[in-house]
Amino acid sequence: MIILGAGFGGLECAKKLDGKDVDVLILDRNNFHTFTPLLYQVASSLLNPSDICFPVRKAFRGSPNVRFRQAEVVGFDFPGKRVLLRNGDTERYDHLVVAAGTRTHHFGNETIEKRSLGLKNISEALELRNHVLRCLEEAGDRPVADQTPWMTFVIVGGGPTGIEYAGALAELMALVVKPEYPMIREGARIVLVEGRDELLPAFHPSLGAYARQRLEQLGVEVRTGQLVDSLVGDEVRFKSGEVIESKTLVWSAGVRPEDVAEDGPTRERSHRMEVDAYCRIPDAPGAFAIGDIAGFVGEDGAELPMVSPPAMQQGRYVADFILQQSSVTGRDADPDHPPFRYWDKGMMATIGRGHAVAQAGSLRFTGIIGWFAWLIVHIYYLIGFRNRLLVLGGWSWNYIFYDRPVRIIAGAKQLPALPGSD
Amino acid sequence: MIILGAGFGGLECAKKLDGKDVDVLILDRNNFHTFTPLLYQVASSLLNPSDICFPVRKAFRGSPNVRFRQAEVVGFDFPGKRVLLRNGDTERYDHLVVAAGTRTHHFGNETIEKRSLGLKNISEALELRNHVLRCLEEAGDRPVADQTPWMTFVIVGGGPTGIEYAGALAELMALVVKPEYPMIREGARIVLVEGRDELLPAFHPSLGAYARQRLEQLGVEVRTGQLVDSLVGDEVRFKSGEVIESKTLVWSAGVRPEDVAEDGPTRERSHRMEVDAYCRIPDAPGAFAIGDIAGFVGEDGAELPMVSPPAMQQGRYVADFILQQSSVTGRDADPDHPPFRYWDKGMMATIGRGHAVAQAGSLRFTGIIGWFAWLIVHIYYLIGFRNRLLVLGGWSWNYIFYDRPVRIIAGAKQLPALPGSD
Repeated sequence: MIILGAGFGGLECAKKLDGKDVDVLILDRNNFHTFTPLLYQVASSLLNPSDICFPVRKAFRGSPNVRFRQAEVVGFDFPGKRVLLRNGDTERYDHLVVAAGTRTHHFGNETIEKRSLGLKNISEALELRNHVLRCLEEAGDRPVADQTPWMTFVIVGGGPTGIEYAGALAELMALVVKPEYPMIREGARIVLVEGRDELLPAFHPSLGAYARQRLEQLGVEVRTGQLVDSLVGDEVRFKSGEVIESKTLVWSAGVRPEDVAEDGPTRERSHRMEVDAYCRIPDAPGAFAIGDIAGFVGEDGAELPMVSPPAMQQGRYVADFILQQSSVTGRDADPDHPPFRYWDKGMMATIGRGHAVAQAGSLRFTGIIGWFAWLIVHIYYLIGFRNRLLVLGGWSWNYIFYDRPVRIIAGAKQLPALPGSD
Repeated sequence: MIILGAGFGGLECAKKLDGKDVDVLILDRNNFHTFTPLLYQVASSLLNPSDICFPVRKAFRGSPNVRFRQAEVVGFDFPGKRVLLRNGDTERYDHLVVAAGTRTHHFGNETIEKRSLGLKNISEALELRNHVLRCLEEAGDRPVADQTPWMTFVIVGGGPTGIEYAGALAELMALVVKPEYPMIREGARIVLVEGRDELLPAFHPSLGAYARQRLEQLGVEVRTGQLVDSLVGDEVRFKSGEVIESKTLVWSAGVRPEDVAEDGPTRERSHRMEVDAYCRIPDAPGAFAIGDIAGFVGEDGAELPMVSPPAMQQGRYVADFILQQSSVTGRDADPDHPPFRYWDKGMMATIGRGHAVAQAGSLRFTGIIGWFAWLIVHIYYLIGFRNRLLVLGGWSWNYIFYDRPVRIIAGAKQLPALPGSD
């Protein structure tokens, strides 16, 4: 069987099948799993990429039945039970678990697509880190009157990614600008834009209000009910006509399924793949879709949220489902097998040092208690003892010394094509 | 005054001037100092870039008289006492310390320049790491007969960089290939090529012989007295006519001064800047050159070696020299000021886990004693408590768990030009 994607869903599915009587091949375009909830900490100079990434081969080192292949999947041949790879190869499957996740969605806005920075993967996080540090250098090189666009950072999207990054960026600026860039007169201006009327729309309104208050204490300008229209030159233009001069637009306002989703039937608004109550893709024998790419409809009639817990639960569910079938025959589900049910354990988001919001059922936490809950959950779900140690160490260091240690503007050329690799 | 370059020499000079009655401006194209002796450990998946880099601004945080500007210097106007920057700006100086170091030298060999990988800076180290990890993935994707060029790694240069990287690469392959790439039948073939007849030509011959023996124990094919002629397609061609099929040529066989050296008089063979016994550049009032870029002639009539100790000693020497002059007048040296004398504290190089060679005067160490000496010296010279902690932690982790944790193929686009930044 094939698992497409080594994110939360795919990895959990593979772990459950590790050591069982199934041949598992994991495909991913990267050779590592990314702990995406902490990407914003890489982007804000707190953590190293490798602290939140884990090589897939290492995760299944010594496994007798789980293999990995680094490859980009461009489509499926569902009737022929084949996965099509970018380099022209195909891989056959009896069972397929599509767990390819999402990519940034710019809603067709070309100016934003071309110039905005994202926070969806490690490359984007590094690029954002380098860009922000470079803005500081560029601002410092200029007369005070010309510093403004370099020191203005517009973040679009009031969900967890947007507010967590806004908080972390505000803290970075507070820690760094004054002591290290004395020639920059005004501190950074950070503007967080959300189209709806409150932050964290998926959370209880009281938590969105708390996040807003907390961000404003950190100096972030929070603008709800506003939409960014375009990015032209250094001008971030709002639908209202207002213009903010800025060199930086961080876009965390939308995601859509990876393009391979379109090889199957998709749901209308979200473009997520249609799946039945067993996470099966209709008319695709042996094929499942899980996690963000799958438009699984929950008990309330709405699609499950695009967060890691449904992906992980579905990964385990589908693994069980496949094991219960007479291993590799690919025949239809055991009629007694129960459909997938999502157990909502809650959601959380952090807003700077010592503050977070968390909700679980009717319970809601804020402040330091929410922050500790956030901290424990994130350390728990990180893969690998070393990564846990390093992330916890990094957080402690940051907490004690008010430091942002990874402030280097450095990158490597992005994966040049090797001669003969295609 | 201006210090060009935040390497070992420039940084040491600035530290000595920190808090003194001199205005210091450090210029560097990167915003960080790189601890270059450990670049090979970044390239071999052991350390993170930020473990061996330190932001220059952070090093002089709170300093009343040391400033930093991230800028690329393209030349000097020695009579006008100005430094010319890539973006057209100039910076005036009363004193100038040129500590710009070296870059890789391919001796005009275009095929090698274009396709070989280097180990001179963080970007190159990351690129090499990504390339090698990708070769493993590509090899694993192919039938056994086609794996050879992907699994053959040619390293040119038998100096410390070449042998340290060869040893670290051999260890990486030994730790990773068998357990994680079962489809790769043959292990890696690592070929270390040196034009002279022995490794580590700058060391005592017994240490070069020890390094050779140790590398061969690690499975490295050591070829001395051989020269690589070109790299065409997948063929590394030797001057002897022999051909090795390989996707990877690591070039550590030559360096030459950064191009700005040519704005002053240079020495014939090495192209290093001419300097007098006080590290002064002839006919350039107030200007000094130190470290690898300076062709300082030692007591034995030879130029000082291109390693960090002379650079650091010259950095401190020039700082003192400048302080002794009536601060900012730029007039000639105090006739009683003694010329610079290099105190040779020795050299060392490590060859894999638990083995190193070191020499200091007539003392020579090998094996575990040399390795501990190497370890202590390198931790001591790393900048910043956190970096020391992380590097020592990383080494301990590697030593105990036989792990190479940073095995991710990841990069960010290399510093795209920001709109309006030039």
